[in-house]
Amino acid sequence: MRALTALAETRTATRPRAGALPVHLRIGLLGLGNVGSAVARVARAASDLLETRGFDLDPVAALVRTPSPARAAAASLACLTDDPEVLFAQPLDVIVEAIGGVEPAQALVRRALTSGIPVVTANKTLVAAHGEALTGIARANGVGFRYEAACIAGVPFLGTFARRPLAARARGLTAILNGTSNAILSDIAAGSSFPAALERAQRLGLAEPDPTMDISGRDAAEKLTLLARLFGSLCVRCDELHISGIADVDPIDLRAAQELGGVLKPIAHASWSGRLFDAFVAPAFLPQAHPLGSISGRTNGILIDSVGGRQLFAGPGAGPDVTAAAILDDVCETVGSPESSYAAEERLAAIPRLPDMSAWFIRITGDVPAAETCELFAAQGVWWNHSAELSGRLYVLTFPASPARVDAAIATVGGAARCTATAFHALPDEAFAC
Amino acid sequence: MRALTALAETRTATRPRAGALPVHLRIGLLGLGNVGSAVARVARAASDLLETRGFDLDPVAALVRTPSPARAAAASLACLTDDPEVLFAQPLDVIVEAIGGVEPAQALVRRALTSGIPVVTANKTLVAAHGEALTGIARANGVGFRYEAACIAGVPFLGTFARRPLAARARGLTAILNGTSNAILSDIAAGSSFPAALERAQRLGLAEPDPTMDISGRDAAEKLTLLARLFGSLCVRCDELHISGIADVDPIDLRAAQELGGVLKPIAHASWSGRLFDAFVAPAFLPQAHPLGSISGRTNGILIDSVGGRQLFAGPGAGPDVTAAAILDDVCETVGSPESSYAAEERLAAIPRLPDMSAWFIRITGDVPAAETCELFAAQGVWWNHSAELSGRLYVLTFPASPARVDAAIATVGGAARCTATAFHALPDEAFAC
Repeated sequence: MRALTALAETRTATRPRAGALPVHLRIGLLGLGNVGSAVARVARAASDLLETRGFDLDPVAALVRTPSPARAAAASLACLTDDPEVLFAQPLDVIVEAIGGVEPAQALVRRALTSGIPVVTANKTLVAAHGEALTGIARANGVGFRYEAACIAGVPFLGTFARRPLAARARGLTAILNGTSNAILSDIAAGSSFPAALERAQRLGLAEPDPTMDISGRDAAEKLTLLARLFGSLCVRCDELHISGIADVDPIDLRAAQELGGVLKPIAHASWSGRLFDAFVAPAFLPQAHPLGSISGRTNGILIDSVGGRQLFAGPGAGPDVTAAAILDDVCETVGSPESSYAAEERLAAIPRLPDMSAWFIRITGDVPAAETCELFAAQGVWWNHSAELSGRLYVLTFPASPARVDAAIATVGGAARCTATAFHALPDEAFAC
Repeated sequence: MRALTALAETRTATRPRAGALPVHLRIGLLGLGNVGSAVARVARAASDLLETRGFDLDPVAALVRTPSPARAAAASLACLTDDPEVLFAQPLDVIVEAIGGVEPAQALVRRALTSGIPVVTANKTLVAAHGEALTGIARANGVGFRYEAACIAGVPFLGTFARRPLAARARGLTAILNGTSNAILSDIAAGSSFPAALERAQRLGLAEPDPTMDISGRDAAEKLTLLARLFGSLCVRCDELHISGIADVDPIDLRAAQELGGVLKPIAHASWSGRLFDAFVAPAFLPQAHPLGSISGRTNGILIDSVGGRQLFAGPGAGPDVTAAAILDDVCETVGSPESSYAAEERLAAIPRLPDMSAWFIRITGDVPAAETCELFAAQGVWWNHSAELSGRLYVLTFPASPARVDAAIATVGGAARCTATAFHALPDEAFAC
């Protein structure tokens, strides 16, 4: 029952007052790429709105690899430098980390926090790897370390749960955490091939030139790691999670899923109890009425299973402007709000395992009669619930079975019947009702 | 662009620290009915969890109409009284208002706030009627006035947006705000009659013995009033909203909606721009893939249309334990968190009107050929998109048309063809994608 917490140092709050002058916050940017530039741009574009709320957000300096006067001017920055010493010599109220990856981001964030400067980031790789240590440093120095934009940037929920102990009594979650994968599967469902859908995602700026992090499931797994820490008080290593990417899904799979009353979505799932942590990141079959079933394109969503019932949060997952807005809202929250870190309290180390039992959506290719294949599965204790034949393949929705039994069944049909079978998790058919 | 704000008095934060003694908060309850008792019960039941987060929530006193020692003992209260003077003579850190309705709740909340005691409530009737004035009093006295539990109690979002100016740039919303109505329509969709579904909701404790507030749409309209204030900076009078209840919906309507690819849900809808406020509270047709389409039973949901995209929040709407948990989380948030009021800033008065244009789901009863009826509608500029015949009725989904044209068409078929037609709003078929 230890989970998200919002403990912080006692300090004097200086939250803006109506009618008072707006609070002037000098922002130092680490990195001026897509996200960093968007932070500078959105801060200027939204300055009137921010002023009515009592905030004057002022990006004054940026640390970049290659300073160029044109970039500084474009972002209206007084100081653009490639030297951390120069950046840290500026008077800064908040630092926004927008470099990405672990290093040098980690070292720079650590330096900011130990210097007593609050840090806001959208960097899930950094938070997955070092979130707990950095949060501890933030607390020790009485400053905030916030990363609302690291997970479903367009939908604020991490900070909310950090403040509300009873709402945060979570037991598990099921989520679509990678917008690129979701957009690609949505396109494939609409008839695209995987390469065409990927090419489109890249053209739209959704996927990176190297889309490996997205389509391999690694990006979602990093987010799952940080969610496990915040909601389950569990330390999970990202590289111990069971991760499958979406590259193996083709248009026929999606048509078959539809025929069997559902859809394939890129799912991150976890449930926990004490030290037990059942989880996977993989494309999975969702029944049509599943609350995440209608979340398409680059939209993200998370369904949190908590003591009070299931809560769904969904919306834009990423994109420079959405990310910048979430970062700037976090910057506003660092003002006078002492609970600006998701605090590091006692956490259990957990080794992830696959869920014990699950229904499965199985693709079988090979020229063997369905009845015969069904019998081979049954012999391994994997019982078919529904099946459909499509384009010379057989698709099956099973009753719940353990991963071991499914593996055994797949091996059997591969040997005896020379079929190739691939199994995807299938989520239970629970209406979103309480 | 003025909307939710979190301005508050500058004060010293006393947020709990890890390792420090929990903050002891003496709670005074106004009312000890379903909600008040649940607050006392949940505070005791969750005391271990709360302690690990640094909180010791202690309901010490309650104001009730008829004090009885047994009730005090049941709620472990030191003081149970029917005299406000006695209650206010107790040393209290927070007051939880759980009386409901406008008076005496309003007078007591006002007294608490002017005495410098923060107030938490779930009372949407009070907030709809006096939210702005009470928030102003709270601010003037440097204390919080929170009501996260007043709207979709099981899903925290009001306070979140109050803190995040960029996330709160909303232009409209579509929501299921009344769990009783949603549960009844879900039951009718599953084959119940309206009276049987209502009786079931009452048996389950969802509907009050007098369910008028729920099924008339009034409860949802009060919530829409407070959402308009928080998200649109608009003062709207609840009794000026266009409200239709669900009592007119029958099982055939729901079957027809399904045949036309959708579902009927109890919807509160609003969009705004400056002083213009288009809104209704009514049962409405949603296409199957609408993000609110899968939200059934007593579950609530809100889809917020904002600058950054559409955000969906859904989960348990009410129930004593869910409400009590949200209230207690608000109590935790009053500690050391200065932004504990959704502040009253400049707001525009708006007179609600029906949306200019909307698609419609129309039920037509009467023995007239479909083609003839279609022609009569067309003569009034209301064009049919799809239609279905069911149990001797005709159901139509129209292309967008103004309410005036639809009224005229209904009058025409009523006169010329002696048909009876009833129109429900139909929401557009937009996938939840970005």
